[in-house]
Amino acid sequence: MSLDVLISEMRAGSRLALARLISKVENSREDRPDIVRKLFPLTGHAEIWGITGPPGAGKSTLVDQLTISLRKQGKRVAIMAVDPSSPFSGGAILGDRIRMQRHTSDDGVFIRSLGTRGQHGGLSRSAKEVAMVLDSAQFDVVLVETVGVGQTELDILKLAQTVLVVLVPESGDSIQVMKAGLMEIADVFAVNKSDRPEADKLVKELITMTSLNDHDEHSWIVPVQKTEATRNVGIEELIATIGKHQTWLTSSGMRAQKEKANLMTEVYEILADRLRQSFDAHLQTSSGQEILTELVNKKMDPYTAADRLSGIS
Amino acid sequence: MSLDVLISEMRAGSRLALARLISKVENSREDRPDIVRKLFPLTGHAEIWGITGPPGAGKSTLVDQLTISLRKQGKRVAIMAVDPSSPFSGGAILGDRIRMQRHTSDDGVFIRSLGTRGQHGGLSRSAKEVAMVLDSAQFDVVLVETVGVGQTELDILKLAQTVLVVLVPESGDSIQVMKAGLMEIADVFAVNKSDRPEADKLVKELITMTSLNDHDEHSWIVPVQKTEATRNVGIEELIATIGKHQTWLTSSGMRAQKEKANLMTEVYEILADRLRQSFDAHLQTSSGQEILTELVNKKMDPYTAADRLSGIS
Repeated sequence: MSLDVLISEMRAGSRLALARLISKVENSREDRPDIVRKLFPLTGHAEIWGITGPPGAGKSTLVDQLTISLRKQGKRVAIMAVDPSSPFSGGAILGDRIRMQRHTSDDGVFIRSLGTRGQHGGLSRSAKEVAMVLDSAQFDVVLVETVGVGQTELDILKLAQTVLVVLVPESGDSIQVMKAGLMEIADVFAVNKSDRPEADKLVKELITMTSLNDHDEHSWIVPVQKTEATRNVGIEELIATIGKHQTWLTSSGMRAQKEKANLMTEVYEILADRLRQSFDAHLQTSSGQEILTELVNKKMDPYTAADRLSGIS
Repeated sequence: MSLDVLISEMRAGSRLALARLISKVENSREDRPDIVRKLFPLTGHAEIWGITGPPGAGKSTLVDQLTISLRKQGKRVAIMAVDPSSPFSGGAILGDRIRMQRHTSDDGVFIRSLGTRGQHGGLSRSAKEVAMVLDSAQFDVVLVETVGVGQTELDILKLAQTVLVVLVPESGDSIQVMKAGLMEIADVFAVNKSDRPEADKLVKELITMTSLNDHDEHSWIVPVQKTEATRNVGIEELIATIGKHQTWLTSSGMRAQKEKANLMTEVYEILADRLRQSFDAHLQTSSGQEILTELVNKKMDPYTAADRLSGIS
């Protein structure tokens, strides 16, 4: 089937066409540029929300409840679950996804797991391009859920316009937030399992931390929202809070700024991937093999080798 | 002070000169290539051991005990503590390092923390080049300790010849090992806190897992060593086991193969960093700004922008 046919079927609502396009973006070096070229002008409709937090914070349940509430508002929702820490499992977080099966009969919900396997040119670029496909498929909200808070996860979350950090009341949690760099990326905090006795203490600590950041009357003060995802408490309020952030993004000019930064990163990642390919190809040639031999024998250092190889791309 | 003077002082045993060279490699784009060019031919002496495992496994205590035992054998030991998950703390894991102060009066031990701050061109490249400096300073063993098991940590551990994975007997630990990809990178397992009741069960599980891997008579079967780092139990045996792996690396030809792969990666990382710099510089020009504007207005897609920018480096 030609790309054009696939794309028009996807735009007409075909889930199968959508799934195939995503797989091609993830796995096919050949089709990927063409797909992005064709879909890019069709993007810009979706709100992209990132969701992260420590394991056990209840992210999946929260994503589930957000999805239900958004569906009640008539919004079409796509969920991307990204787990960069599982390089060998391919499609990850599948256990948690089982719970999401209640949405399988709902055409307004689409769920996709992204693992590290088969992600040519880096997971954060793949995630960005898959989000682009979902956007062009006219979902209203794309939820990007990541596990853990390593550097890769932080990179991936940059594709989101609004980043929601989910925490649970546990001793030392606010220190963890600082250490893991979550303070820097959070646009909204959710204190989940807020029926626990320590919840108010954590909320207070977070409010203190967020108010310590420099800000003037135009800047965004990161709000803290209490939720109990399992009992559907605080979910509507959380969606309203995220909505306020989305409004602020536009009025402050931050939306355009973030988009610009993301596009620049993507262009760089495309160039770096091409460099990687020419590099690998060149090492197969006799001059590449010569350089390698001299390197291994310490007759040439890595910087001189890089000088010799510059201009290969 | 000129680089040549610094280097000869470092080679004569000056810790100050060593510390300054490492800082330059980490922070100075200008000096870094020159330092690596000069030191690279002097490397190849040190054994590089990687140490990783989940938080709470007792890695730091184990590193401490390994250091004491290696010192008793007359070996000079350098410790690199790398924490990629703390992008904002700069030098990381310092809390644990306090315990290591007992070595401060010992000229045969050198300790250095590497954070993400100021690491031009990526943490794994920095870690590789810092290890190179330590190698050229004639340490016998360089211990590279990482926290956590994200993709960045796995990348960093590739610089080690022997990777030691430290685990503690806790329920579900062996499943964690599989999930986190530790099975793929472990050359030696240490089951620490082996006085705990579940220790033998974990040892058995690990042995089953390691024996499941394909291997012939020439391949390395990952050994499992019980330790109690706090009581100095099993440490000598662990060092002997790592020694066997080092011998196997040479006899199997794997040492050369690993070194080759690491050198190739480093050359690529240097080229990618140069690409990044020309890319950033080009975006400041009027033609770069034009491309950016067209991207933001969706009049140009990222792949076309990459085509337009190819050849900038």
